[in-house]
Amino acid sequence: MIIDKYNKRAKKINSLLCVGLDADFNKIPKRFLKKKFPQFEFNKWIIEETHEYTAAYKPNSAFYEARGDKGIRELKMTMDYLIKNYPDIFTILDAKRGDIGNTNNGYIASIFDWLGFDAMTLHPYLGGESLAPFLNRKNKGCIIMCKNSNPGAGELQDLKVAGKPLWQIVAEKVSKNWNKNKNCMLVVGATYPKEMKKIRALVGDMTFLVPGVGAQGGDLKATIKAGLNKKGLGLIINSSRGIIFSYNPKIEAQKLRDEIRKFSTFS
Amino acid sequence: MIIDKYNKRAKKINSLLCVGLDADFNKIPKRFLKKKFPQFEFNKWIIEETHEYTAAYKPNSAFYEARGDKGIRELKMTMDYLIKNYPDIFTILDAKRGDIGNTNNGYIASIFDWLGFDAMTLHPYLGGESLAPFLNRKNKGCIIMCKNSNPGAGELQDLKVAGKPLWQIVAEKVSKNWNKNKNCMLVVGATYPKEMKKIRALVGDMTFLVPGVGAQGGDLKATIKAGLNKKGLGLIINSSRGIIFSYNPKIEAQKLRDEIRKFSTFS
Repeated sequence: MIIDKYNKRAKKINSLLCVGLDADFNKIPKRFLKKKFPQFEFNKWIIEETHEYTAAYKPNSAFYEARGDKGIRELKMTMDYLIKNYPDIFTILDAKRGDIGNTNNGYIASIFDWLGFDAMTLHPYLGGESLAPFLNRKNKGCIIMCKNSNPGAGELQDLKVAGKPLWQIVAEKVSKNWNKNKNCMLVVGATYPKEMKKIRALVGDMTFLVPGVGAQGGDLKATIKAGLNKKGLGLIINSSRGIIFSYNPKIEAQKLRDEIRKFSTFS
Repeated sequence: MIIDKYNKRAKKINSLLCVGLDADFNKIPKRFLKKKFPQFEFNKWIIEETHEYTAAYKPNSAFYEARGDKGIRELKMTMDYLIKNYPDIFTILDAKRGDIGNTNNGYIASIFDWLGFDAMTLHPYLGGESLAPFLNRKNKGCIIMCKNSNPGAGELQDLKVAGKPLWQIVAEKVSKNWNKNKNCMLVVGATYPKEMKKIRALVGDMTFLVPGVGAQGGDLKATIKAGLNKKGLGLIINSSRGIIFSYNPKIEAQKLRDEIRKFSTFS
């Protein structure tokens, strides 16, 4: 199972930290802008500063696509660098894709096969049938959006279907029907510990990608308490801006790793 | 309003046809594979064969991303070619994006500003708040997925919320709350004329992007009857494979344009 790669790394370094490589061209330090490959050089620096605390890296595709083919090339360089130097660190592309069946093969060719990511984030709106090409890739992770951390996520996700919120329906569908290859995970924001607890009760040991810690105001202790699975794992806790655009990314990564350790059980 | 561009073109050539530039590298004729820019050269040929019948072109991003930065460059070349030679043809990137608020600015920089598309397709699952950066671009079209044409789309989209299917809730939200800048459209598959009629009744003259004609088996006559708005417009009827991978794309485009004319009222 692909999640074993994450779990092994998390246990090895005793960390559930995921660093979001959101190399926004408008925010990276000026010294990188002079370089030939600014986003790649920035990422390389962040990786060198943070890798010892990091179980997973998660670039968001939008920040690379913003620069057209140049950005895509630097995302590829970043992945080549990670795979060469830190092959045991789990990699996620936050791409939030989700097209109809066969068309998704294009995203698979790009994100799983060419770039080489272990996992990517996906929209559930077109149903499990549409996601089959992703779900059928046994050795790749499919991280389905369930309960997102943005302020307005509830507009659709909290709608009640037969007495249950839509996010619960999604969690149940992923757990019962979409996860035949044991390669599904869920996005569950740190801003909703109560809902996270409920989802944990519904889906067994499935892993959650957790955005919303730090900049978005999620409560780390409550999140970890609500979200850990029976093995003391099951959470990929992401921080992006709070680490990569801080004065000292190394210290911020270590701090958050330490905070996570305080509340997680295998530390 | 951005939709005026489409309407003007549709009226000028008396056609509601959208040609899907899904330049799947595994399906384009072999003679293009020898060229330096195979997807671009294929598209250029298709555009030259079909433009006189075509009100809109809609590449699907997945087929270009499949080839990494090379594919993105050829998508850019395709758009440069279209904007230079056929600036009055409406352009849609079928990208099915949808991230949290600020992150979406990356997709806007790429798809609207760098590539220069008039419109793109979007997922509604993270709510209207998340889509604000798109919705705030008054001169660009936001085509929200509502009732998709793939066989399994109903798994989520047909779920009942207070007695209404989720697709209806999405249609109502887009129409009432998300469309303040009159730049929203909806994806409504040709495979559901009954539902299309219902959506038309709910959203006034809003334009629908209609996939599913041809290869996916949608009924053209029923679709047009159900979907035209009061002005005899309101539909962007897409065909991809059925035209671009046919023996004679020119003839197939003309045929479908003629079929559409038979059932549409401003012909």
